[in-house]
Amino acid sequence: MPRISTKGMAMPESPIRKLVPFAEAAEQEGRKVYYLNIGQPDIHTPQGALDAVKNAEIDTLAYSHSAGNESLRNGLAHYYRSHQIDVTTGDLLVTTGGSEALTFAFGSIMDAGDEIIIPEPFYANYNGFAIQTGVKVVPVEATIHNGFALPPIEDFEKHITDKTKAILICNPGNPTGYLYSEEELQQLAKLVLKYDLFLIADEVYREFVYDGVKHHSIMTLPDLEQHAIMIDSVSKRYSMCGARIGMLVSRNQNVMRTALKFAQARLSPPTYAQIATEGALDTPESYFTEVNDEYVKRRDILVDGLNSIDGVFCPKPQGAFYCVAQLPVDDADRFAQWLLQSFEHNNETVMIAPASGFYAKPSLGKRQARLAYVLNQESLQKCVELMRRALAEYPGGHI
Amino acid sequence: MPRISTKGMAMPESPIRKLVPFAEAAEQEGRKVYYLNIGQPDIHTPQGALDAVKNAEIDTLAYSHSAGNESLRNGLAHYYRSHQIDVTTGDLLVTTGGSEALTFAFGSIMDAGDEIIIPEPFYANYNGFAIQTGVKVVPVEATIHNGFALPPIEDFEKHITDKTKAILICNPGNPTGYLYSEEELQQLAKLVLKYDLFLIADEVYREFVYDGVKHHSIMTLPDLEQHAIMIDSVSKRYSMCGARIGMLVSRNQNVMRTALKFAQARLSPPTYAQIATEGALDTPESYFTEVNDEYVKRRDILVDGLNSIDGVFCPKPQGAFYCVAQLPVDDADRFAQWLLQSFEHNNETVMIAPASGFYAKPSLGKRQARLAYVLNQESLQKCVELMRRALAEYPGGHI
Ligand SMILES: Cc1ncc(COP(=O)(O)O)c(C=O)c1O
Ligand SMILES: Cc1ncc(COP(=O)(O)O)c(C=O)c1O
Repeated sequence: MPRISTKGMAMPESPIRKLVPFAEAAEQEGRKVYYLNIGQPDIHTPQGALDAVKNAEIDTLAYSHSAGNESLRNGLAHYYRSHQIDVTTGDLLVTTGGSEALTFAFGSIMDAGDEIIIPEPFYANYNGFAIQTGVKVVPVEATIHNGFALPPIEDFEKHITDKTKAILICNPGNPTGYLYSEEELQQLAKLVLKYDLFLIADEVYREFVYDGVKHHSIMTLPDLEQHAIMIDSVSKRYSMCGARIGMLVSRNQNVMRTALKFAQARLSPPTYAQIATEGALDTPESYFTEVNDEYVKRRDILVDGLNSIDGVFCPKPQGAFYCVAQLPVDDADRFAQWLLQSFEHNNETVMIAPASGFYAKPSLGKRQARLAYVLNQESLQKCVELMRRALAEYPGGHI
Repeated sequence: MPRISTKGMAMPESPIRKLVPFAEAAEQEGRKVYYLNIGQPDIHTPQGALDAVKNAEIDTLAYSHSAGNESLRNGLAHYYRSHQIDVTTGDLLVTTGGSEALTFAFGSIMDAGDEIIIPEPFYANYNGFAIQTGVKVVPVEATIHNGFALPPIEDFEKHITDKTKAILICNPGNPTGYLYSEEELQQLAKLVLKYDLFLIADEVYREFVYDGVKHHSIMTLPDLEQHAIMIDSVSKRYSMCGARIGMLVSRNQNVMRTALKFAQARLSPPTYAQIATEGALDTPESYFTEVNDEYVKRRDILVDGLNSIDGVFCPKPQGAFYCVAQLPVDDADRFAQWLLQSFEHNNETVMIAPASGFYAKPSLGKRQARLAYVLNQESLQKCVELMRRALAEYPGGHI
């Protein structure tokens, strides 16, 4: 039997997936499972996006331009400019989700054996994209004690070798929810200029920032034209994860020309999704205000609730819709499985994502879990109470 | 300025793209250009596909399962079984176009430095996917003199090294239109069993076979369960290229499990497109009969017309909607550019795809071009007459 690739064997399974059979079993037993493990918001997609598709008059569903429809690209450039990000249509490429933008960015700037530095914990699929590209992820540890702020610049600098091609940040962060300050970004800018590296910022949660704090895009930093690459997506922004539209944005025309060749090889991004996205661009500002008001309430219920449980520590994030909590347990993987296998209260339980999957170093995050606040307030209230009871009952608990 | 990747530099530009500026200039001058260079059919998408999307009731456009919606996968398995391809839902994965299925297949079975043998001329984007994977394409020459039939098995065998992991064929072929016979496929099957290689068949043109000849899928060959990987797509089958839905099909569960990890990293295939595809599965057989009748007429107009021109030789293909013609010119690249820059009759001209882009060996195909018969019969008639005049006028012509 012919063998699969070494790379294929090294590809990680989704960190959440190994728990799915336990969740399915729990549901089959008739227990209700609250899914705090995934970033699939319950928020409605803007009607303008849905209507644009319903009203599209199509006879032949043809390939679009490999870089995306011109009208959509113009609309996106306009969106960015209205967010103080001064780019033109030529600086952006429409991709099949932020996921594909990450793949194109990795492929355009790195060869097998190159290194990319990423503060951990980080979005687990960065590992998958790195393995596909043959690139080595070099983690730099952020700590829960300061809410996962940017690690000291010296920690990055220590890890720079002649193989290092880029630093990748997620802002606001998944899984941490941490929002980088302008000063932190400026420190990174100085560093990448000093060592002539790319700075990739995954800004797919840009619109989800709370407490009146402002999001700073790396695209607004001076002197970074040739270094900054932004990853973006409509998945979370307009709650249209299933559309599969993302963006690769850079003023570095070498990067854009190269990424376009990757885009040409796969022909085009999905047409219906592009139509939906163009429709979404007219979404009124009030949509975001309402959505963010809702997320703030959810965050407060979940994070304040968790912190009210003995032995739990959960920094309050100012962005995205995740939090990472330190739990009074022996092992968060074991606890998460126990929640699904052995726990119930009023026939209900919760599914959480053990944080180990978001760390590259195997020893880290063992007692941490990521919880997404993408359920309604009432459900989140229940989840907090379920967590309180579960942690009290869990045999591997210790405070 | 940080440098892009070696791989990025090696990525080929689309072989057609370099002529696009000349086509645009011709149109700006007011000339009408007939586009015979691309495989974008003018055929209507089945109404069932379009209606399924129009009628979909969506509130939140959510991620689907990474392998594709269960109902769609069941429907596709049913489609295959009704085409004598005995697979179950677990043997197939829904991808973002056949393009992504190729990327997943390459990544799942090959590492950087591995080799894949492909009869040339071949679909140009195989090069791009190979470069992304770090894989070396080893071409085996097929010849226009026998209509691009399978090269002798000895020619494949000669190129097998300990780096060889797979043989890739396209059936029916793009750019050749050649339809492999059952005997040819059996020869390949014997070879891959002997050397324990994978056999990948790109069957995205499966439904486009003419003259009463039958298409044979590699999935129907005995003893190939662990070796056969089929690439499929709805792009051409239902004339819905813009949907971006393809399929990776194999009974080798190691391959499928590995490909699923690639699929999980990019989260999910596009939701609207999956809905459209499920709608398309009910397309009545009469749709294909009508479409194929139309393509046969178009093929006959184009191929018979080309062969009626002095010095042109164009084998008549029995599948897909392309043909490769040998032209009485010094250089098909130069001729194609001249058609756009310097030729007109009644203010009209044609755009063709020079075949050099479909060959890996630089010396091959220099006087050949690929022409797609995706325009209506009247336009194709005109194209033949334009080609006749152009070849008579072209200063670099010789017969
Ligand atoms: C940090 C981050 N980046 C990128 C993505 C990819 O999203 P998509 O491919 O849906 O745009 C996600 C999705 O969860 C994410 O959390
Ligand atoms: C031979 C062949 N394979 C694969 C593809 C990829 O098609 P898609 O990604 O639209 O399914 C094409 C498109 O032209 C093709 O001609």
